Amino acid sequence: MEVTVGEGRVRMGMIGGGEGAFIGPVHRAAAELDAEIALACGAFSADPVRSVRSGVEGYGLSRERCYANAAALFAGELARSAGERMQFVSIVTPNHLHVPQALAAVRAGFHVVCDKPLAMSEAEALALAEAARRADRLVAVTYNYTGYPMIREARHLVASGALGRIRRVQCEYLQGWLAQAQPDNKQADWRVDPARAGAAGCFGDIGSHCENLVHFVTGLEMEAVCADLNRFVPGRQLDDDGNVLVRFAGGARGVIIASQVAVGEENGLCLRVYGERGGLAWCQQEPNTLRVSFADRPCEERRTGGPGLSAGAMAATRLPAGHPEGFLEAFANIYRNFARAIRAHEAGDRAGVAALAGEFPDVRDGVRGMRFLASVVESSARDGTWVSM
Amino acid sequence: MEVTVGEGRVRMGMIGGGEGAFIGPVHRAAAELDAEIALACGAFSADPVRSVRSGVEGYGLSRERCYANAAALFAGELARSAGERMQFVSIVTPNHLHVPQALAAVRAGFHVVCDKPLAMSEAEALALAEAARRADRLVAVTYNYTGYPMIREARHLVASGALGRIRRVQCEYLQGWLAQAQPDNKQADWRVDPARAGAAGCFGDIGSHCENLVHFVTGLEMEAVCADLNRFVPGRQLDDDGNVLVRFAGGARGVIIASQVAVGEENGLCLRVYGERGGLAWCQQEPNTLRVSFADRPCEERRTGGPGLSAGAMAATRLPAGHPEGFLEAFANIYRNFARAIRAHEAGDRAGVAALAGEFPDVRDGVRGMRFLASVVESSARDGTWVSM
Amino acid sequence: MEVTVGEGRVRMGMIGGGEGAFIGPVHRAAAELDAEIALACGAFSADPVRSVRSGVEGYGLSRERCYANAAALFAGELARSAGERMQFVSIVTPNHLHVPQALAAVRAGFHVVCDKPLAMSEAEALALAEAARRADRLVAVTYNYTGYPMIREARHLVASGALGRIRRVQCEYLQGWLAQAQPDNKQADWRVDPARAGAAGCFGDIGSHCENLVHFVTGLEMEAVCADLNRFVPGRQLDDDGNVLVRFAGGARGVIIASQVAVGEENGLCLRVYGERGGLAWCQQEPNTLRVSFADRPCEERRTGGPGLSAGAMAATRLPAGHPEGFLEAFANIYRNFARAIRAHEAGDRAGVAALAGEFPDVRDGVRGMRFLASVVESSARDGTWVSM
Amino acid sequence: MEVTVGEGRVRMGMIGGGEGAFIGPVHRAAAELDAEIALACGAFSADPVRSVRSGVEGYGLSRERCYANAAALFAGELARSAGERMQFVSIVTPNHLHVPQALAAVRAGFHVVCDKPLAMSEAEALALAEAARRADRLVAVTYNYTGYPMIREARHLVASGALGRIRRVQCEYLQGWLAQAQPDNKQADWRVDPARAGAAGCFGDIGSHCENLVHFVTGLEMEAVCADLNRFVPGRQLDDDGNVLVRFAGGARGVIIASQVAVGEENGLCLRVYGERGGLAWCQQEPNTLRVSFADRPCEERRTGGPGLSAGAMAATRLPAGHPEGFLEAFANIYRNFARAIRAHEAGDRAGVAALAGEFPDVRDGVRGMRFLASVVESSARDGTWVSM
Repeated sequence: MEVTVGEGRVRMGMIGGGEGAFIGPVHRAAAELDAEIALACGAFSADPVRSVRSGVEGYGLSRERCYANAAALFAGELARSAGERMQFVSIVTPNHLHVPQALAAVRAGFHVVCDKPLAMSEAEALALAEAARRADRLVAVTYNYTGYPMIREARHLVASGALGRIRRVQCEYLQGWLAQAQPDNKQADWRVDPARAGAAGCFGDIGSHCENLVHFVTGLEMEAVCADLNRFVPGRQLDDDGNVLVRFAGGARGVIIASQVAVGEENGLCLRVYGERGGLAWCQQEPNTLRVSFADRPCEERRTGGPGLSAGAMAATRLPAGHPEGFLEAFANIYRNFARAIRAHEAGDRAGVAALAGEFPDVRDGVRGMRFLASVVESSARDGTWVSM
Repeated sequence: MEVTVGEGRVRMGMIGGGEGAFIGPVHRAAAELDAEIALACGAFSADPVRSVRSGVEGYGLSRERCYANAAALFAGELARSAGERMQFVSIVTPNHLHVPQALAAVRAGFHVVCDKPLAMSEAEALALAEAARRADRLVAVTYNYTGYPMIREARHLVASGALGRIRRVQCEYLQGWLAQAQPDNKQADWRVDPARAGAAGCFGDIGSHCENLVHFVTGLEMEAVCADLNRFVPGRQLDDDGNVLVRFAGGARGVIIASQVAVGEENGLCLRVYGERGGLAWCQQEPNTLRVSFADRPCEERRTGGPGLSAGAMAATRLPAGHPEGFLEAFANIYRNFARAIRAHEAGDRAGVAALAGEFPDVRDGVRGMRFLASVVESSARDGTWVSM
Repeated sequence: MEVTVGEGRVRMGMIGGGEGAFIGPVHRAAAELDAEIALACGAFSADPVRSVRSGVEGYGLSRERCYANAAALFAGELARSAGERMQFVSIVTPNHLHVPQALAAVRAGFHVVCDKPLAMSEAEALALAEAARRADRLVAVTYNYTGYPMIREARHLVASGALGRIRRVQCEYLQGWLAQAQPDNKQADWRVDPARAGAAGCFGDIGSHCENLVHFVTGLEMEAVCADLNRFVPGRQLDDDGNVLVRFAGGARGVIIASQVAVGEENGLCLRVYGERGGLAWCQQEPNTLRVSFADRPCEERRTGGPGLSAGAMAATRLPAGHPEGFLEAFANIYRNFARAIRAHEAGDRAGVAALAGEFPDVRDGVRGMRFLASVVESSARDGTWVSM
Repeated sequence: MEVTVGEGRVRMGMIGGGEGAFIGPVHRAAAELDAEIALACGAFSADPVRSVRSGVEGYGLSRERCYANAAALFAGELARSAGERMQFVSIVTPNHLHVPQALAAVRAGFHVVCDKPLAMSEAEALALAEAARRADRLVAVTYNYTGYPMIREARHLVASGALGRIRRVQCEYLQGWLAQAQPDNKQADWRVDPARAGAAGCFGDIGSHCENLVHFVTGLEMEAVCADLNRFVPGRQLDDDGNVLVRFAGGARGVIIASQVAVGEENGLCLRVYGERGGLAWCQQEPNTLRVSFADRPCEERRTGGPGLSAGAMAATRLPAGHPEGFLEAFANIYRNFARAIRAHEAGDRAGVAALAGEFPDVRDGVRGMRFLASVVESSARDGTWVSM
C-alpha cells in the first residue's frame, strides 16, 4: 500500500543518479526538502536493470515509473495523463550527456534541470538555449552555491551600491580529493576523462562554480582571462589545478583559483569582493556568515536569519538564526524557485516567470559558463595570453 | 491527481505544527529528508478548520487524512488498513500536551516521537514510560542536537577512553530572542507560561538540551545540582536565564549555563569536555567541526565527512566533507534511526531494535530530563542548596 | 663601556625574576617596551650569588646595582642620588612575599608594582593599602589583561550605556598545564603550595584575573558568590579547578569559571557581557578582536587599531590595525600608565595622578581581589552556601 | 642623570624614523625587546633640528648622539671608542635612500639593517651586496614576517618533507588603507611616488613580503611570473593592486596577490602551501596558529609555544602557549638573530655567523626581491607575458 502526497507538488523525473552516485540523492533530497516537489520517476542508470533497481530501492518509487533509459522515460511519461506526468527532468549524468539528454527533454515537452557545466562546448550550450526557447521550456542549471542566503545577501549588497563601484574580485575553490590518482573512484573516473568531462577538468568541475558565483554576486561581465592550468597528478589528461587572472568590463580586476590537489582542503569555495567603499567575504564551509567591511566603521557579520538582512536573503532562509542551514538547503532553494517558475509557466503567468529570473541559474548562465571554460583553456594553451570573451 | 511514493517509507502522523508553527515544518522536513519516512496524516491545530487547512495547504496532504483533533486522528487511522495506517505520531505541541497526547497514542497502538521536555513533571514522564512499555510502543524524544555527526564522534571519543577519565564538563546554551517581552510572538507565548511550559522556562526549553547532550556525549550521570535561575524580563514568571553547578557520579564536575536574554546570541549551544588526557569542544553554530586537544600534541579538528572518524559519525553523515550539514540533517538522523527501529520492531526483530538503542533519544532520556529540571528548579528555589538527583 | 639612556625613563627595580623565572623577563620586556621605563637594578633571587648573576647576565645590568636581597636593594638605592635612584620596584615573587616586600618598599619611599594576587589575605592587602596611603606611594597590581586595547574598548562600551543595563556576565579562564602533577616545574611548585600561594590555587592564580577583568569592564560590584572548587590531581592541596556563581549589586548575575586541568587549553581567558540592549565577547587568545552584538543589527567586530574605537582603546594601541599586538603590549600598557602616574606624582601633579586612576590596576583592585578569593574559598568550604561580599 | 645598561647589548644606530614616522619606533621597540640591543644614536630626519629633537624627545637619547644627518652619524660614531661606537645602523628611510645610505654605512665599517624593498633596482641591490662582501659587513633586510614562530614551523614542515613535494603556493597580502587618495598621509605620500618608492607601488611595499615569505617557507625559486598590476585610485602613478601567476623551478605553481585598495582589510598576509601529502595555512592576523592538513587524518593546529613544535619555532618563541605574541615579537626575532650574528662576527666566529644564515633575511633576499619586482613590473607592462627570472 502506498502513501500519497497531494497535488501541490511539482512532479520531477531524474536521469542518472543511480546506485553509487553521490549527486543523485543530493538532488532528490534538495528537491523534496520543501514539499513543493516530488520525485515521481526516472531513468537512473545506463544499465536498465540497475536503473529500475535504483529507483525502486534507492528512491522508493513504483516500478512502473522506473525506466530503462531516458528515451523510455520521456515516452512513458508522455503516455501518462497530464496530471500525473512528470513536469521536469533533472539531468545528473556526466557532462557529455547533458545537452543530448536536455535537448531530448525539451523537445519532448519537459522542463529541465541540468547539472553544470551545462555542455561540452559553448556551441552545444547555445543549441540547447535555442531549442528550449523554441519549445518554450524552462532550463535551470544547478550552480547550487548561488542558493545560499548569504550569497543572496552579498548580491543585494553589491546591487544596492553599498560597496561602491567594484574594483577587485577574488574567488577560489580548493579541494584535495584528487591529489592522487583515484583509479577506483566512480566520482573521479569521468571527471578526469576528456571524453566525458570536456576540455576542462578541475575548472569544469569547480572553477565553473567560481565564474558563476562571481557573476551572480557582482553582475560583472568578464572581458578577458589569462590562465595557467596545471596537471599535477601523473597521467592526468585534464587540469587538476589552475589560476586565472580576470579583467571585467568596467575596470574591475580579479583572480579565479581552483584546485583539486590542494591536499587537506575539503570544499573550500570562498569569494571576496572589494568596491570603492566596502568589501565582503564569504566561505562556503561556514555559509551562514557574510563578513562585510568598510573603511570607516567596524566590520559586520551578517548571518543567515539574523537581523538586518535583505528580502532576498530572508526568502532563502528556512530557520531562525543560529540553526545552521547547509548545502542541501542552498541546493533546495534553486529547486524551489525553479518549481515555482514551472507553476507560473504552466499557469500562463509570464510575469510570474519573469519575476523568478535570477532566482535560479538558467541556460544563459550555462552558456556563459561554457564561454569561460573555453577561454580559460585557450589562454592556458597559449601560455597565458589574454583571451577576450 | 496524486504522486505516490512507495512502500519503503514509514508513515508518520503529526499532532500540532499547524499554520504559524516553527517546529512543525522542521519536523516534516527532517523526517522526510531521507525518503525513509513520509508524513501521511495529522491533526495540526486545536482549531479543526485550521487543522485541516494546515495539512492540505501547508503539507500537501489529502483532506481525508487531515483530522480535526488528536482523537480523530487516532480513530481515523485505526480505521485504515494496516498497510496504509500511520505507524508513528510526532507530537509537536506545547509541553503540557505532550504526555496526554503521547499516552493516547501509545494506548491506541502508535509509536511516538515527542518534543522535549517530555512532560510537565518526572511523574508524568514515568507514567508515559510505563504505558509505552506495556503497549510495547517505541518513544523517541527529539533532543535533536544529539544527531550531529560530530556529537556522535565526541561520544565515541569519550567512550573510547581517548580523553581519559572525564573531570570537567561545560555546556552552555545562549540565545537572545527573549531579551525583551514578546507579547505578539507565538513561539514565545507558551514558553513563558507555566501552565503550558511547566516549572522551568529557559531551562525547560534549552537548558534541557544541555543536560541531554552532556549525558549523550559523556555517559555521566548527574549526582547533584546547585542552581541559580533568574528572571530578567519584568513580569516574566519563569526563568529566562540561569547557571547551574553540577556534580557527576564518579567525581567529574561542571557547569550548565542557559540564557534566553543573552542579547545578540542566536542559538549558541556549546559543549566542552575535559578528561585526564584530552579535551574536546563543539559549538552547534559550526556543527561540522569538533576540536580535540591533548597535552602532548597539536590539537585536531575533526570534521564531518573528514578523515579519521568513527563509524558512528560516518553513519550520521550524508555528504562529503566540506559540504555543510546543518540543523535539519542532524534532526533527520534522529528520525531516520527511529524509523529504522520501528521497522525492526514491526518485523519482530528485537535485536535490531536493541541495536538502535542510543541512536535516538528515548523515553528514559525524557524522564532523566524531567528529573534534571525538577532538581534545578528546587535548588534555585532553595537559594542554591545542592539538590541530589 | 656602556650605553646610556636618557633622563626620560622612569627607573625601575625588580625583586624576584631571576634565573629560571618566567615572569621576570616578561615584566622587564613589558616595562621597557616604550622607552619610558628602564630596569636599573634589582634583587632577583633569594640566593645572593644567583641574584647578582641574574642581573648581570640575564638583564645586562651593572654589577653594583644587582643586590643580594630586597633589603640591600632598598638600602643601596636610597644611598644613590635622587636622579639615579630607582623610582619604583616591581615585585614578582611568590604570593606570600608580596606584602612583606611591598610594605618594606613603600616604607623606604619607593612606589610599587606587585603581581597578583596581591596578598595572602584581605587583611594583609588592607595593611599594604594603608601603608601606601601613609607613605604617599603609588601601588600598581599587575592584572595585566586589563591592558588590552579591546578590553579598554569593552569598558568604554559598557560605560557608554551602549549595551544597556548589564544582566549577565560570564568569565572563564581555562588552562591545562596543571592537569598532571608537575614535580619538577618551578612555576608549578609554589602555585600548588598553600604556604606560598595562599588559600586559593587555581582561583588565586587565574580566577583572580577573571574577577578583576569583570570589574574593570563592567564596573559591577560582586554581592555574593556560590562556589564549587575542585582538586582533581591526586595529592594536590589547593583547588586546581572551580566554578563560581556570582550575584552582582544591581541585579546582574553571572558565573566565573577557572581551571588549570582543562587539558589542551592554553591560556583561555574569555569574557562575555550581556546587557539589555547588546552583548560583547572577547577572548585573550585573539585579543585584537572584540565582538559586539545587538538584537536589531548585525554583530560588529571591533579591532585593535581599527575604525570607530574609543579614545581609551586608541591610547592603548601602538600599531596600525592588523599588526597583532599581544600579551607583552597589554602588559606594557599597565607599566606605561603607572610610569606616567609616577612622573605626575613626582612633579606634584595630583590632578595628573588622579587622571590616571583606572588606567592601571591599583591597591584597591588588589584588596577587592583578596576579598573575592576569601569568599570563594569560604563558599566552597561550606558546600556552596552563598557568601556575601 | 642617566641610567646605564651594560655591555651585553649590541649598539644600534638609526637613519630615519623621526617624528611622525610609524616604522622607526617599531624598529626600536623590536630591537630592544630582548635586552640584547640598545638604540644608541641616530640621524632621524632629513631636517637637522627635527633629527636631534626626535632622538632626544622621541627615543630618550643623549643629544650628542643625535646627529644632523647620516654622514654626521657615521663620522661621529667613528670618532668614538670601539666599545661605545654603534655597531650597526638600521635604515628606515624611503626606498630610494636605502642603498646610498647602506653603501655609506658598510663602507664606513658598520653592519646594516635595511627595510624592504632593499633598493630601487636589482643592479643597485647587487652593488650593495658586493660592497658589503668587500667590507665584510653583515646586512639584514627586514622582511619581518619571517620572524613569526609559526612561519619558522612552516619552514620546518616543508623542509622535513612532511608535506611531500610542493605543488601549489598561494600568498596574498590585502590592505585597504590606500583605497582612497591620501593627500595628507605621510606614510602614503612616498609610497605612491615613483621617485622615492621605485617602479612598484603596492608590490614594492607588500607584494615583496609575499615573495620573501614564500621563498623562506618553501625554499622554492621562482622561474617566471605573469603579472597584472592595477592602478585603481585616480591619479596614482604606481600599482595599488595586482595579481601574479608564478611558476617555480621544479614544477610548483602558484599565485601572489597584493592589494592596498581592498577596503576593510587591515594587514591580511596569508600563506598557503600544498604538497603531495599535506598542506599548510597561516594568516598574519592570527599569527600564533598554523593549520596543517593531510589527506588521511584530521587537520592540526600548531600553536606558538604549543606541543610538538620544531626547535626553530621554539627558539622564536618567548612566552608559553596562549600568551599571544605579535608583530613586534616577530620583528624582534629578526633583530635578535642579527645581533647574535654581529657578536659572532666581531668575535671572529665565522661558524657562528654561518649558523645564523637563514635566521634573518639578508642581502641575497634583498637582491632576489628586486628581481621579483622588476619581473612583475615588466610582465605587467607587456600585458602579462610570462617573464623569466
